[in-house]
Amino acid sequence: MEEESPLTGISPPGRIAAPGEGIGQDELALAARNHGLPLEALRYEVTPAGLHYVLVHYDIPDTGTDSTPAPTPWRLTLHGRLRTPLDLSLDDLRALPSVTHRVTMECAGNGRARLSPRPVSQPWLVEAVGTAEWTGVPLRAVLAEAGVTPDAVEAVFTGADHGVERGVEQDYRRSLPLPVAVGADVLLAHTMNGGPLPPQHGHPLRLVVPGWYGMAHVKWLRDIELVDTAFRGYQQATAYRFRQSPEEPGEPVTRIAPRALLIPPGFPDFMSRTRVVRPGPVRIAGRAWSGYGPVVRVELSTDGGGGWADAEVLPQGGHPYAWQGWHADWTAVPGSHTLLTRATDASGRTQPVQQPWNRGGFGNNQVQTVSVVCR
Amino acid sequence: MEEESPLTGISPPGRIAAPGEGIGQDELALAARNHGLPLEALRYEVTPAGLHYVLVHYDIPDTGTDSTPAPTPWRLTLHGRLRTPLDLSLDDLRALPSVTHRVTMECAGNGRARLSPRPVSQPWLVEAVGTAEWTGVPLRAVLAEAGVTPDAVEAVFTGADHGVERGVEQDYRRSLPLPVAVGADVLLAHTMNGGPLPPQHGHPLRLVVPGWYGMAHVKWLRDIELVDTAFRGYQQATAYRFRQSPEEPGEPVTRIAPRALLIPPGFPDFMSRTRVVRPGPVRIAGRAWSGYGPVVRVELSTDGGGGWADAEVLPQGGHPYAWQGWHADWTAVPGSHTLLTRATDASGRTQPVQQPWNRGGFGNNQVQTVSVVCR
Repeated sequence: MEEESPLTGISPPGRIAAPGEGIGQDELALAARNHGLPLEALRYEVTPAGLHYVLVHYDIPDTGTDSTPAPTPWRLTLHGRLRTPLDLSLDDLRALPSVTHRVTMECAGNGRARLSPRPVSQPWLVEAVGTAEWTGVPLRAVLAEAGVTPDAVEAVFTGADHGVERGVEQDYRRSLPLPVAVGADVLLAHTMNGGPLPPQHGHPLRLVVPGWYGMAHVKWLRDIELVDTAFRGYQQATAYRFRQSPEEPGEPVTRIAPRALLIPPGFPDFMSRTRVVRPGPVRIAGRAWSGYGPVVRVELSTDGGGGWADAEVLPQGGHPYAWQGWHADWTAVPGSHTLLTRATDASGRTQPVQQPWNRGGFGNNQVQTVSVVCR
Repeated sequence: MEEESPLTGISPPGRIAAPGEGIGQDELALAARNHGLPLEALRYEVTPAGLHYVLVHYDIPDTGTDSTPAPTPWRLTLHGRLRTPLDLSLDDLRALPSVTHRVTMECAGNGRARLSPRPVSQPWLVEAVGTAEWTGVPLRAVLAEAGVTPDAVEAVFTGADHGVERGVEQDYRRSLPLPVAVGADVLLAHTMNGGPLPPQHGHPLRLVVPGWYGMAHVKWLRDIELVDTAFRGYQQATAYRFRQSPEEPGEPVTRIAPRALLIPPGFPDFMSRTRVVRPGPVRIAGRAWSGYGPVVRVELSTDGGGGWADAEVLPQGGHPYAWQGWHADWTAVPGSHTLLTRATDASGRTQPVQQPWNRGGFGNNQVQTVSVVCR
């Protein structure tokens, strides 16, 4: 024993990095265990499960794997403002009619480490995204079976992951407004890309809320409570708010702002990640998405933002919740170039060249910058 | 075009961080795309593929996935000091008798970011490890078919990944001394944990060299050349050497030094990763491994290294290349504690409390430190 220390001692409040302050060992510990999509993996229309971004707040709970059963059989309980509380096994859920949605998911903190000053948390650059085929039971079907009472206003989802955050001990827990929860697209997903969920993606069951940032897609989902007042838990009322100062209540983080990413062309330098291309025609391709509707325009700049040209954007092709492919042709000439890309969606939302700042580093969609040397 | 810049401008020489210098954006870009084993995943005897550590020097090449064929069918060529050069398809390889080895693999740079001063490269803490079941054809069987000529001294393995490193453009390429290459345990692996290799682990074929650090297990393996002089390529003669200064030739990095890791007990704080446990009995469990033979002893300290007690080490159980489980019982009392663990193998090698330094940050096996608060 060294000395007694209160919980607040191990769980400091959120903070903003000092000007020029490098990434700390605490941020590095998060970066080493979580991971983004290596940008060349944008080549896959559906991201192989092991390449999809992962952000786990606490530990991956011990809920079994494809080949190793969990210590205790999984149950999903539904209670609260319901006529008939339910207690379902995985077999019960798998016996219900299922649907499959191809969904692009992005972390609400994507881009945080490019902000200045930098909010100290998981230090994403631009790569916290992925697209998977999620198969499961529409939540509305299960809620219809249970019978939501007229006074219910939100559904609260609880995962099996447990930890401390900013001094608050908690199970990971988030709510959705009832009109969102009973939307046709929200799933209780038991299958990812045709197989069981990997441990880090919520095995054996997670919520999938197409169009919303990742914090809404509660992993290792074990309980749903229908409530008659707005949920005020940590992940809803304290974290995941757009704020300039810690005191203000802030607006909630919800849907995904538009973003385009390009597959870095040519080949990389190991350390600087600068790209090398040969002179001549180069096909620039990528993906673009938005939680507010289809992407209607993608632009590419090959001169650091001086000029922009429209790329060809592929249609959604029957997958309204998934990213869209795009491409443009560029003729590389010897020298150094900076490639930028930006998406605009059907709602008119687009991406800023300079990012508006918020204290949590949420909802950033500053344009991607890729350094290329042609020789 | 901005300005013409030579390749050396985008690919600076290796460097050592200044005292107190935080992790830079270049190191962060590597940490965001590569990832370690989340330490709680030490609970799995065989690591689910998506949780196994990944280190990719350049890009993951476009070699297809389980569901998406590669743009061109995969071939493995064998040439050089052979009586009969071979050009094999995957079907050719899969038609040969295969074996399965359970292998613990670790990055040679594991622990680098804990060194002081810190070599600037992929900033691992302690988590760059994983254990998989690799199935494939023993390399010796294919070499016997081709007929190695008596003047061959090494086999050179080339992957499909291409990039620049410290100013040198290259395909990733490493050699093995012939006596190692024809050892009974070296595999041309086409299957990981019973399925096709995921893209990031070398789809469709990689070399597996049990007991050696990860740099030897060439991914996306496309060519093997038998040579009659020692290979002097970048990854052999420049990188992956134990050196104090850039000028000295240094000793090559080869086998894995012993290491024990414990599964952090209790639950974590999101940001500090400090663990919280309740007072009373706590089972501390983990894994330990060495590339020099079985682990014969694991010790645990619960007071920051003041005292050490032996843990119970499980036998290898028919898997001589895989980590061994271990556990010890601890009675937690309120206060702050620092848990340390260290392994000793049958060769007598063990782990230092203070890490000897080398310029590349290779072969580190300083003891793990886990901060725990009991309340």
